[in-house]
Amino acid sequence: MEQFDNVSVSKRANVYFDGLCVSYTVTLADGTRKTVGVIQPSKLVFNTGAPEVMELVEGECRVVLPGESEAKTFKGGESFSIPGNSSFNIEVVSALHYVCHYG
Amino acid sequence: MEQFDNVSVSKRANVYFDGLCVSYTVTLADGTRKTVGVIQPSKLVFNTGAPEVMELVEGECRVVLPGESEAKTFKGGESFSIPGNSSFNIEVVSALHYVCHYG
Repeated sequence: MEQFDNVSVSKRANVYFDGLCVSYTVTLADGTRKTVGVIQPSKLVFNTGAPEVMELVEGECRVVLPGESEAKTFKGGESFSIPGNSSFNIEVVSALHYVCHYG
Repeated sequence: MEQFDNVSVSKRANVYFDGLCVSYTVTLADGTRKTVGVIQPSKLVFNTGAPEVMELVEGECRVVLPGESEAKTFKGGESFSIPGNSSFNIEVVSALHYVCHYG
């Protein structure tokens, strides 16, 4: 699915790391909130509150998941999960378009 | 209105100028297409195809409109129009959240 249908979307972006990560909040018809975003090539550390599933739409990254010592590569069409109240290191190799699912 | 309701939104961002400008395409229930985006502080030149109305949600910029010699300041809550097939110089002073209307 290349787009969300029948949703609400914020007019103000969430901007992190001076714009290296930009996302918008999307609310589905059933009230579920997700974010749709893009991360520019960079090495960043993200912190989670709720558990997250990062669904990659396009691009490539290398991620060190919590509790692991080696980076794994993920590409568009793949996903990875991050526990709540944790953090992960991500190296974005090419602009990473994603949908983030929470909870 | 702080969000669009009952719309479709792309899962892939439009990325310009190495991510200094990121936007998403939003399609309203009546088929009208708009973009919702954010420009990080920078000096850029944008080209238009269709005429555009830039509705500023938040932030501040200085714009030299086509045919004018002096920059004007625009802020969140204000709008400016650009003719089709033209270009404009924009200096973004603080992260500029916008909705772009076409045609």
